[in-house]
Amino acid sequence: MSKVIKGGTIVTADLTYEADILVEGDKIVEIGKNLSGDEVLDATGCYVMPGGIDPHVHLEMPFMGTHSADGFESGTRAGLAGGTTMVVDFCLPNPGQSLLEALAIWQQKSGLACSDYSYHMAITSWNEQVFNEMSEVVDRGINTFKHFMAYKGALMVDDDEMFASFQRCAALGAMPLVHAENGDVVATMQQKLLAEGNNGPEAHAYSRPPEVEGEAANRAVMIADMAGVPLYIVHASCEQAHEAIRRARQKGMRVFGEPLIQHLTLDDSEYRNPDWDHAAQRVMSPPFRNKQHQDSLWAGLQSGSLQVVATDHCAFTIEQKRFGIGDFTKIPNGTGGLEDRMPMLWTYGVRTGRLTMNEFVAVTSTNIAKILNMYPRKGAILEGADADLVVWDPNRSKTITSKSQQSVIEYNVFEGKEVVGLPRFTLTRGRVAIEESTIKTEPGVGEFIGRDAYPAV
Amino acid sequence: MSKVIKGGTIVTADLTYEADILVEGDKIVEIGKNLSGDEVLDATGCYVMPGGIDPHVHLEMPFMGTHSADGFESGTRAGLAGGTTMVVDFCLPNPGQSLLEALAIWQQKSGLACSDYSYHMAITSWNEQVFNEMSEVVDRGINTFKHFMAYKGALMVDDDEMFASFQRCAALGAMPLVHAENGDVVATMQQKLLAEGNNGPEAHAYSRPPEVEGEAANRAVMIADMAGVPLYIVHASCEQAHEAIRRARQKGMRVFGEPLIQHLTLDDSEYRNPDWDHAAQRVMSPPFRNKQHQDSLWAGLQSGSLQVVATDHCAFTIEQKRFGIGDFTKIPNGTGGLEDRMPMLWTYGVRTGRLTMNEFVAVTSTNIAKILNMYPRKGAILEGADADLVVWDPNRSKTITSKSQQSVIEYNVFEGKEVVGLPRFTLTRGRVAIEESTIKTEPGVGEFIGRDAYPAV
Amino acid sequence: MSKVIKGGTIVTADLTYEADILVEGDKIVEIGKNLSGDEVLDATGCYVMPGGIDPHVHLEMPFMGTHSADGFESGTRAGLAGGTTMVVDFCLPNPGQSLLEALAIWQQKSGLACSDYSYHMAITSWNEQVFNEMSEVVDRGINTFKHFMAYKGALMVDDDEMFASFQRCAALGAMPLVHAENGDVVATMQQKLLAEGNNGPEAHAYSRPPEVEGEAANRAVMIADMAGVPLYIVHASCEQAHEAIRRARQKGMRVFGEPLIQHLTLDDSEYRNPDWDHAAQRVMSPPFRNKQHQDSLWAGLQSGSLQVVATDHCAFTIEQKRFGIGDFTKIPNGTGGLEDRMPMLWTYGVRTGRLTMNEFVAVTSTNIAKILNMYPRKGAILEGADADLVVWDPNRSKTITSKSQQSVIEYNVFEGKEVVGLPRFTLTRGRVAIEESTIKTEPGVGEFIGRDAYPAV
Amino acid sequence: MSKVIKGGTIVTADLTYEADILVEGDKIVEIGKNLSGDEVLDATGCYVMPGGIDPHVHLEMPFMGTHSADGFESGTRAGLAGGTTMVVDFCLPNPGQSLLEALAIWQQKSGLACSDYSYHMAITSWNEQVFNEMSEVVDRGINTFKHFMAYKGALMVDDDEMFASFQRCAALGAMPLVHAENGDVVATMQQKLLAEGNNGPEAHAYSRPPEVEGEAANRAVMIADMAGVPLYIVHASCEQAHEAIRRARQKGMRVFGEPLIQHLTLDDSEYRNPDWDHAAQRVMSPPFRNKQHQDSLWAGLQSGSLQVVATDHCAFTIEQKRFGIGDFTKIPNGTGGLEDRMPMLWTYGVRTGRLTMNEFVAVTSTNIAKILNMYPRKGAILEGADADLVVWDPNRSKTITSKSQQSVIEYNVFEGKEVVGLPRFTLTRGRVAIEESTIKTEPGVGEFIGRDAYPAV
Ligand SMILES: [Zn+2]
Ligand SMILES: [Zn+2]
Ligand SMILES: [Zn+2]
Ligand SMILES: [Zn+2]
Ligand SMILES: [Zn+2]
Ligand SMILES: [Zn+2]
Ligand SMILES: [Zn+2]
Ligand SMILES: [Zn+2]
Repeated sequence: MSKVIKGGTIVTADLTYEADILVEGDKIVEIGKNLSGDEVLDATGCYVMPGGIDPHVHLEMPFMGTHSADGFESGTRAGLAGGTTMVVDFCLPNPGQSLLEALAIWQQKSGLACSDYSYHMAITSWNEQVFNEMSEVVDRGINTFKHFMAYKGALMVDDDEMFASFQRCAALGAMPLVHAENGDVVATMQQKLLAEGNNGPEAHAYSRPPEVEGEAANRAVMIADMAGVPLYIVHASCEQAHEAIRRARQKGMRVFGEPLIQHLTLDDSEYRNPDWDHAAQRVMSPPFRNKQHQDSLWAGLQSGSLQVVATDHCAFTIEQKRFGIGDFTKIPNGTGGLEDRMPMLWTYGVRTGRLTMNEFVAVTSTNIAKILNMYPRKGAILEGADADLVVWDPNRSKTITSKSQQSVIEYNVFEGKEVVGLPRFTLTRGRVAIEESTIKTEPGVGEFIGRDAYPAV
Repeated sequence: MSKVIKGGTIVTADLTYEADILVEGDKIVEIGKNLSGDEVLDATGCYVMPGGIDPHVHLEMPFMGTHSADGFESGTRAGLAGGTTMVVDFCLPNPGQSLLEALAIWQQKSGLACSDYSYHMAITSWNEQVFNEMSEVVDRGINTFKHFMAYKGALMVDDDEMFASFQRCAALGAMPLVHAENGDVVATMQQKLLAEGNNGPEAHAYSRPPEVEGEAANRAVMIADMAGVPLYIVHASCEQAHEAIRRARQKGMRVFGEPLIQHLTLDDSEYRNPDWDHAAQRVMSPPFRNKQHQDSLWAGLQSGSLQVVATDHCAFTIEQKRFGIGDFTKIPNGTGGLEDRMPMLWTYGVRTGRLTMNEFVAVTSTNIAKILNMYPRKGAILEGADADLVVWDPNRSKTITSKSQQSVIEYNVFEGKEVVGLPRFTLTRGRVAIEESTIKTEPGVGEFIGRDAYPAV
Repeated sequence: MSKVIKGGTIVTADLTYEADILVEGDKIVEIGKNLSGDEVLDATGCYVMPGGIDPHVHLEMPFMGTHSADGFESGTRAGLAGGTTMVVDFCLPNPGQSLLEALAIWQQKSGLACSDYSYHMAITSWNEQVFNEMSEVVDRGINTFKHFMAYKGALMVDDDEMFASFQRCAALGAMPLVHAENGDVVATMQQKLLAEGNNGPEAHAYSRPPEVEGEAANRAVMIADMAGVPLYIVHASCEQAHEAIRRARQKGMRVFGEPLIQHLTLDDSEYRNPDWDHAAQRVMSPPFRNKQHQDSLWAGLQSGSLQVVATDHCAFTIEQKRFGIGDFTKIPNGTGGLEDRMPMLWTYGVRTGRLTMNEFVAVTSTNIAKILNMYPRKGAILEGADADLVVWDPNRSKTITSKSQQSVIEYNVFEGKEVVGLPRFTLTRGRVAIEESTIKTEPGVGEFIGRDAYPAV
Repeated sequence: MSKVIKGGTIVTADLTYEADILVEGDKIVEIGKNLSGDEVLDATGCYVMPGGIDPHVHLEMPFMGTHSADGFESGTRAGLAGGTTMVVDFCLPNPGQSLLEALAIWQQKSGLACSDYSYHMAITSWNEQVFNEMSEVVDRGINTFKHFMAYKGALMVDDDEMFASFQRCAALGAMPLVHAENGDVVATMQQKLLAEGNNGPEAHAYSRPPEVEGEAANRAVMIADMAGVPLYIVHASCEQAHEAIRRARQKGMRVFGEPLIQHLTLDDSEYRNPDWDHAAQRVMSPPFRNKQHQDSLWAGLQSGSLQVVATDHCAFTIEQKRFGIGDFTKIPNGTGGLEDRMPMLWTYGVRTGRLTMNEFVAVTSTNIAKILNMYPRKGAILEGADADLVVWDPNRSKTITSKSQQSVIEYNVFEGKEVVGLPRFTLTRGRVAIEESTIKTEPGVGEFIGRDAYPAV
């Protein structure tokens, strides 16, 4: 049964024009005027855009014997509700664990995904098995490897391991990603703050200031330079990291920076909220920064020195957050955002005149698909592309509240923000998953999207 | 009679894929597999790309009672021979002259153009008539206004005039362009050098070092910022100008920078050539710079802080250049380049791994079409777009020599450079103008391309 | 009759040590332990420092047929009360006027000075007479020439004139100074704001944002570079100007930057005060900036990229300020500060840990004396140096208020600030001018201090 | 028996003036005109300056069971011959060794020193004993602690250890120093290069490019920032490290950078010399860089963003250097320079107009004495200061050659350079050690100079 999206204005990273879209099965089969199909989705007054891609989420992430609260079902449902039709999760082997074994576990988790998904593979330790398995991982469609420069004693790798892994990435046509914070310094600062009696959530921010992130970003850039490999810096939250990225790019290096919607729109005053729960719910790494850092991130999106916007969605319940009462280092790190990324960015980016609509599509979808090597299957409105689409109604508005959100947790860091610009329809591979406030997602229809190795330059 | 371009790989700024292109009349009518048409152009082994656009040329430019040597016929023929299917010339009113009167003159010159063309309008003086006529100029499809910060006593405008004009541009939805060099300082330096007996072509470079350009770029950026208007800096040749552009972009400003193929590939050692003619033939403004500036420009194209590549094609004969014997300030400023831009950039940019093929298309065509507001009619391979196409044979090679060039002058600043990557076919609005070394251009088929005012943000 | 300053700790730019100082006549004649003299000044618990030098004041400055309110008598008295023992005023010829004629007028004004003084000569127009007289001006002990890049239609010179004058300075061993703001842009902005109905004092700040200053600073740097001359940028108030200075210095250029105590400690929120008088009293050029600019200025003093602190003291009465009611462009530009510079800088610089005591001496006195070529006669505690000294009591405090100030005006921009650190004694060429709150100044004892041309490097 | 230095021009960091100097015993006792003493040293036509201080030398440094070739006798003799009257050596405990035990060993080595000397203490491992002994080390007059970020598996400490040590420095009023290169990356690069068959001295430079140094400098800055302690970066050799320093200083941090005379005047073309010995003799870390880096270092000295000039004197014989034939990682790292630093810097710095004479004194002596907290006992020409003096004849010249050098090794990296400006006399604590070409040094007269902890700000 075919569908036609009628009467809308197509907005891609490249172009804005009026046309209908004919969808058959899970593909776009025709784009043009006056198309007809079995079912008509009315896009009058709307922009029809490639569905959002969130390049950075953690669904059902293992944590202290339990998991982050949103799994693939509720996480992808939240994404779809906000116009995001694909997520890229992080497969996290325990240090020493086989990458392939971890991958098998992740594949199980994702069985009920409502939209397509892919994985980054984390390199959390280094040995010959890891070296060897990286090749197999790339063959299985995972061409990106994540490295944690923080979380000492857990996920962190040192410079030696990073350099070895980056060189391996270069050989395999894969791209390294880094979480850039100096883990040694963070760990020491945490102990120092606790010892001084600073055990509240605000100390989380004190323990990892922008300098600590900028240093690590700068270090990762140098190691990538020496390895001759591109680099993707996740959750770049501050001017210091952004500066390291700019400097690299001004040498001709291919370095990418990913701000989060949280860092673009929320600031560190949140941690000064006297309500422990309020502040703890905002604990993530890197922490929120001040307004000057926000200005830097927005300018990066405008100038192209930063390329994509993500969420690092990793939702914990109030109860889980409270593990950290009396010891901020035990507050699970992470906030939600999957449902809110697109409306928040539209509201604070497009409606304010900072970004064009085409740039909005670029940073929420197309650039991501290109950088992660799955364009134009994803991130495009082209004949033959997957029918991952959002029919965006620029006049629909709501006030964000946890009461009506898809995420299973009881709060929302954007609570009370009014957004203007929301999906009328979200289609995932041709299926209507969202129709305004009506959720029609189907758990299990999402598929793994393999991403090939990058071609040699 | 339809034509099909068969068997090639389409390369756009966005995408690389295999497909045929069906052309009817002057438009692309279909893109797909296994297309057929009345005439087949064999693109096997080739990349099919949007024809190049040169955003900066001077054809039949008035000069000391005569004109620059290449007019619209030979200039556009040279462009087509190198894969460039459109040029944007500068309409240059005399100070005090009516803009519309100047435009009428320019329209006459372009009668024999072999490819499409457009104009930028220069603001060379400021008064109420100019203010008023700018609106009419925009209505006639010219949405870009050029300002010379150099050439004192001739084309130069002062800050007052620039600010007034930039504000007018903002009101009209037009964009200012600047030639950024401090004209006061250049003029004084010229007199000083002459007074000291430095009258040779090398003194041209001494009279306008990078600092003089960087200063003016910085000043233009500030004035654009105050006027609330985007800005396009032509022939950005050095790190200092590039830095001013980067700083502006890092504030979120929309500032564009245009390096020339000459500055990317030739350096100031040319002026030290003891042959007066050799050196004088390289005299242009800004002059060639050293290798460090070249590195800066390439990195700008790679990182996106510079967006387009032009030629500033303004060809003078040996005889014309010799007007400046004994007084370098009388050497007519300008070099050729229209035929060489694309092969030189492919050879030194794509084949060296600095730029991807998609980036090549972006900086030679698509970005230009977007920035100058004529996308996707130009700069795109899309159904409905003008059939301005180049079928690029990455294996064709030649050694550049004035002996076989299209330009009417007797020398070539790229003489002796070997280029690999040349057009197999160049099509201008559906007509085959070039087939390998065979020139099939038709004088007079080129048309003026109007460009609408920019929409308000 | 000799004096000995006993029991204090001498603090110079170079050194901190305990010693007494013996003064005979107007000179320091001995520095050592256990000195004795006819009169003893008790410096117990105090720091004995070179008297402050204010390199930038306007006393009895001509203005709309009247003068700025503080002349040489009250101005130098205010300075002495705050520990400043010398001022450098600006001799301002009318455009077209003979420099020597203007100098004669200035010499008359300074007859009642209570402390020593010197002049900068302003170049407010350019012609052969000016060119010729500059040599005579240097011979008369004035080796610094001021250029206004703002105040269009009055004091402003254009790039041509600046470049000519800078070259002349280079030839004479003199140094150019600039007031760096783009006068064309300011003038247009003023008219635009007035036309839009913005006629209050806050519009003064809108008409000359940091970008307008940064641009001019950058331009002056380039012109100095081309002329091969050092450069001194007065009242550098913002990061943009500071950045231009840093960039120049990182090329090896000798460029100096002078922040004002006002810009270091007051911000632009002052202009949002609803009281017209309050805001208008803060009108000066450049206007106060936001806190980020303050941080930049402080870091400049700490790192040495900015070298001196001045006041631009130019005091107008409430009545004079009210000339600008209904038209902010008519508000006379200027604030006081001579009495407050040293205590404010000590309080906000030394007591906060930003500056060492030695750095305090450097930026208030020694660096100035060196840069203006009158060291070690001034700015030093050395045998043979002028006995311009301040015995600084780090524990004396007061709340600044116009009620008890020396300046003749009725308000003070630092009103209500508490300062800790004040003179116990101030000596001007050996005379005790200030003893705690007792004013002992003697009008007319101040002398003109000639400053020789700089030696060739 | 007193000495008077007569007829010269005294040049200090602060001042240039004509005066005689009276020396009694090891102190300056009087400065003035027409002094007389038992012995007259004729300084006519000379500049009398504070003796040079080399803040960075390695004398009799342990190495593969032997020692670097110059010990305290020949090293300080070489220093004196070039006008350097004090050296600061590095006490290098083996990892795990007691700091105090190492100090005892170093004290023994220095018994025959011909000039005064001091030590930095290296932190080469971290444990409770080190933590505790640091306090005693400070008490013994060593207030600076060196940290190697390179030399993995030997001297290198990791970020954790550095942060702990920096915090300890902060508590003790001591200052950390760093050798800034990323040791992990260097070690991997070395193995990679060797594996690829690059075993010659040129591979030494390939294994540690400027990026590797810049990264480490940036990291050390961040750690110092977090620890709240000043930082001294030894042998800053490149723009990348210099940029990290500038950025830190522009935040208001107290970070110091030390270029070496080698990096200021020699470049990486030396490693391309086909003579293995020639290239190997230039092997040091960081390696020589290209001319652009030299420009950056000179500008740093001019602008004050770099403060001191050292040698890292660590001399190895030809035979020792040849340990590395066939494996560049075994070439002992180090070059001489103690005798040449002052004449080379005078010739290439002062005579070229880059530095004033006062700046020359600052960067070779006074700044060092201040930064290392031994001013004004050292680095000053003041009554009461140590009579460490050089009578500098600006007209004496020579061609540098190993044939006539004091160092015991058989070559000189400055071989063949002509220097103009050499000592007529060098005095160490009042003794004439050098009189033109005559060496009068007395082994064993040199004493250890203790340096107190820094006062709290
Ligand atoms: Zn992370
Ligand atoms: Zn994450
Ligand atoms: Zn031009
Ligand atoms: Zn042009
Ligand atoms: Zn001013
Ligand atoms: Zn002033
Ligand atoms: Zn070292
Ligand atoms: Zn060393």
